Amino acid sequence: MTPALSPDSKPICAISTPPGVGGIAVARISGSKAIETVDKIWHGAPLTRANTHTAHYGEIIDTDGSVLDTAVATIFRAPKSFTGEDTVELSIHGSRYIQTRLIALLVETGCQPAAAGEFTRRAFANGRLDLASAEAVADMIASDSKAAHSIAVRQLKGDYSQRLAGLREKLTELAALLELELDFSEEDVEFASRATLLATAQQVSDTLATLASSFKAGSAIKAGVPVAIVGAPNAGKSTLLNTLLAEERALVSPISGTTRDTIEECIDIDGIRFRLIDTAGLRTTDDTIEQLGIQRAIDKIATASIVIWLIDPTTGCEDSVGVNDIDGDSFGGLRISDHISPDATLIKVFNKSDLSTNQLPGYLHISAKNGTGVDTLRDALTAAARNGLPDETDMIVTNARHYRAITDAARAINSVIAALGAPHAAGSSAGNGGDAGDGGDGGVGNGGGATDYSGIAGYAVMGPDMISGDIIAQDLRQAIHHLGEITGEITTTDILTTIFSRFCIGK
Amino acid sequence: MTPALSPDSKPICAISTPPGVGGIAVARISGSKAIETVDKIWHGAPLTRANTHTAHYGEIIDTDGSVLDTAVATIFRAPKSFTGEDTVELSIHGSRYIQTRLIALLVETGCQPAAAGEFTRRAFANGRLDLASAEAVADMIASDSKAAHSIAVRQLKGDYSQRLAGLREKLTELAALLELELDFSEEDVEFASRATLLATAQQVSDTLATLASSFKAGSAIKAGVPVAIVGAPNAGKSTLLNTLLAEERALVSPISGTTRDTIEECIDIDGIRFRLIDTAGLRTTDDTIEQLGIQRAIDKIATASIVIWLIDPTTGCEDSVGVNDIDGDSFGGLRISDHISPDATLIKVFNKSDLSTNQLPGYLHISAKNGTGVDTLRDALTAAARNGLPDETDMIVTNARHYRAITDAARAINSVIAALGAPHAAGSSAGNGGDAGDGGDGGVGNGGGATDYSGIAGYAVMGPDMISGDIIAQDLRQAIHHLGEITGEITTTDILTTIFSRFCIGK
Repeated sequence: MTPALSPDSKPICAISTPPGVGGIAVARISGSKAIETVDKIWHGAPLTRANTHTAHYGEIIDTDGSVLDTAVATIFRAPKSFTGEDTVELSIHGSRYIQTRLIALLVETGCQPAAAGEFTRRAFANGRLDLASAEAVADMIASDSKAAHSIAVRQLKGDYSQRLAGLREKLTELAALLELELDFSEEDVEFASRATLLATAQQVSDTLATLASSFKAGSAIKAGVPVAIVGAPNAGKSTLLNTLLAEERALVSPISGTTRDTIEECIDIDGIRFRLIDTAGLRTTDDTIEQLGIQRAIDKIATASIVIWLIDPTTGCEDSVGVNDIDGDSFGGLRISDHISPDATLIKVFNKSDLSTNQLPGYLHISAKNGTGVDTLRDALTAAARNGLPDETDMIVTNARHYRAITDAARAINSVIAALGAPHAAGSSAGNGGDAGDGGDGGVGNGGGATDYSGIAGYAVMGPDMISGDIIAQDLRQAIHHLGEITGEITTTDILTTIFSRFCIGK
Repeated sequence: MTPALSPDSKPICAISTPPGVGGIAVARISGSKAIETVDKIWHGAPLTRANTHTAHYGEIIDTDGSVLDTAVATIFRAPKSFTGEDTVELSIHGSRYIQTRLIALLVETGCQPAAAGEFTRRAFANGRLDLASAEAVADMIASDSKAAHSIAVRQLKGDYSQRLAGLREKLTELAALLELELDFSEEDVEFASRATLLATAQQVSDTLATLASSFKAGSAIKAGVPVAIVGAPNAGKSTLLNTLLAEERALVSPISGTTRDTIEECIDIDGIRFRLIDTAGLRTTDDTIEQLGIQRAIDKIATASIVIWLIDPTTGCEDSVGVNDIDGDSFGGLRISDHISPDATLIKVFNKSDLSTNQLPGYLHISAKNGTGVDTLRDALTAAARNGLPDETDMIVTNARHYRAITDAARAINSVIAALGAPHAAGSSAGNGGDAGDGGDGGVGNGGGATDYSGIAGYAVMGPDMISGDIIAQDLRQAIHHLGEITGEITTTDILTTIFSRFCIGK
């Protein structure tokens, strides 16, 4: 099903280590003639006679006969390599000149420069890993935090693919039985038990719903949990940002492409990455430009998973009025609380506790300036982030392509459930019907079960009894197709090209 | 002589590949317990039983039992490794998280983070390479051009060290004979033939002179040959810079730390790196600030190895007057030609040949705008740069530390020659005295030979016959000492620390 490579695939080459200067760099060469090709520029024991998984010291000879570098060549023979092809890894000195020249020399010797992700694409094509695992390689390389990393590792190891493959296999069996039944439709036999079919469809639907609902948390883990720090000017937002950042400085990196009027910084707390958004400039104003800035801040608040509402008691507003009233309209008529997402966690913080001994119920009392109470705030952040996360052992969807495929598969499977559900569940097993009703938990597409049935386009005009096996079979095939898209059983060159172009060169 | 490491050197660890994100990264662990230490976090075939130069696929297990990464571990057993110690190279996925976490994990498991250059320092301490070769490793990694690279490769291979070691050995033999003679001084025997001693000293002096004189060219190769583009405003200096840069864009990198009023860009032509310096703003002015800028431009001209004097014929000055007159004083009373170094090559260029058909003798005629004649200019640049370069096979000094040691050794050896030269040459062999006179070629310190003898402090007050063998022996020892500094036979912890701190971490 996957596009097979010709057995004489031309060797590809690339520097696989990060760009720049370092102690060493590694060039990777893969293809059916990779070892022979490298051997042409190699001075040392002949690589063509080397065993797999052995390392050899030697010299790389440039076309003018001069020594380009001393190097270690490690040989991986097909199929025991990452790509499944013969592979050489050349460990060279990490100068810009050597790296650039080596790739040019390899190209002159018969290699072609590898496209982004081409090594992994060949690994996929050679059946060394499925598509979801291949994508996990890219996610793993991009992962900046422990949580994002853990998800990628699990996905790379194939847990995810295996679980989806398991669901897909079940559906495939049922579809086959159903299609067999259609071939014998005149005899009115039931190869596929409707009850089994419904139960299986429901089980698949539940799993897909759980997966789909993990996407929001998964995306947050991958990109960082968005935290908006909100409050009146001088409430101490920037000081708080700096205090949180200062202790995590080693892991801080600015996010590029942020708007000029909001500042975003990333920190890792307890393995979870947070994107802290300092929404500066939130106040009543007649200035049109500033109003635009405030609107942008409000947009940030609306998309944040966590909102820190920061008040400054020294402005005399401990009693929650004026600019310290989240339900008031002190910001140019904007009521902040209206703009916080219902899914978001609101953390109310009473800043400058060093200047005021007052206590407000429901507020964390901190001093951003001297650090008092900041640990408690940090704990509140991780607790809020964890709240949205599935268990360690759960599968989490972090990939938008997977999310789309899962949603599509769920829609198809819910059509199957709808078609089977009402009449058959009533006629065969009420218990199954009840189970079907649980499918709504995840909130993906329709929730499954009889109640949703009438809402499905195409079926609404038919009576329940008129929904024939072949329409159900078609929906099943649709669900199977979408699940196959994730692991790569079903794919197109376009999809593959899009996926692998996200990779870095050399992987 | 080199500080020996304890046989139980604690394993050190570092990411040896360039910093940043890439397909893969390599962590290197070296020390007597390196393999055992890595094995503690390794899930796969036991590395402790692996043969040297073999690669093994497995998993790196974090302290919480989770899989940090799948990796390939390559084993190099002492002494067959870069450092001469047991070494493991872990090829991991190149994510920031994995790289950071792996080093932390290794430190938790008993490694210490490697200091800059510590792997190479251990290689030196274990006699795997001499100090000049160790420094060549750093030069090789820093080299951006073919020429700089070639020098580093030759130095790394030890050509340089061998030649210096050869000189040093000859001197050591002679010093030993001379010292033996001193022990028997009352018997007035000559173990060391004065003629042989003088000839050898002269040979060493010649070689040192050649080496020292290669330093200027060597430095230029390493840092780029400085080329000042000089001319009146609107002569087309910036256009020329851009034209030269445009075709070499792939290898262009801006130099940081340049002053605001001169622009420096690097290009590689034919394997040689040039630093093109656009000296903007050269004109008569009363503005104090601008005058400072012009002074800075003049400073750049004075230190350039090549000066491109660019004139614009359309200003009506083809006849070399006014701002197009390099010998005139049209730039605030500054005569440009006075400020060009006598060693520099002056290339006179007649720009805008597309706008003027006039021809000026001694000028290259180009159009920076449409590229006409720029190839000829490029050839003139490489010819001028090569002019200062020794042959491909010659040794070139690129290292300021080596230059200093060579100059010091030359001074000592020339004292020996001076002491031996006049009286003994006259008394024993006129032929040798003639040879000694050739020592001045290189222009280092004094040129050797009898004529320089009187100029040497300390000897001037003595008559030639009064210079005793023990003073000569002392000078010889001094020369031997300085030669030994280069290859590392003579060294101190301070010197080593300074040298290796130039290295990157992980090398």
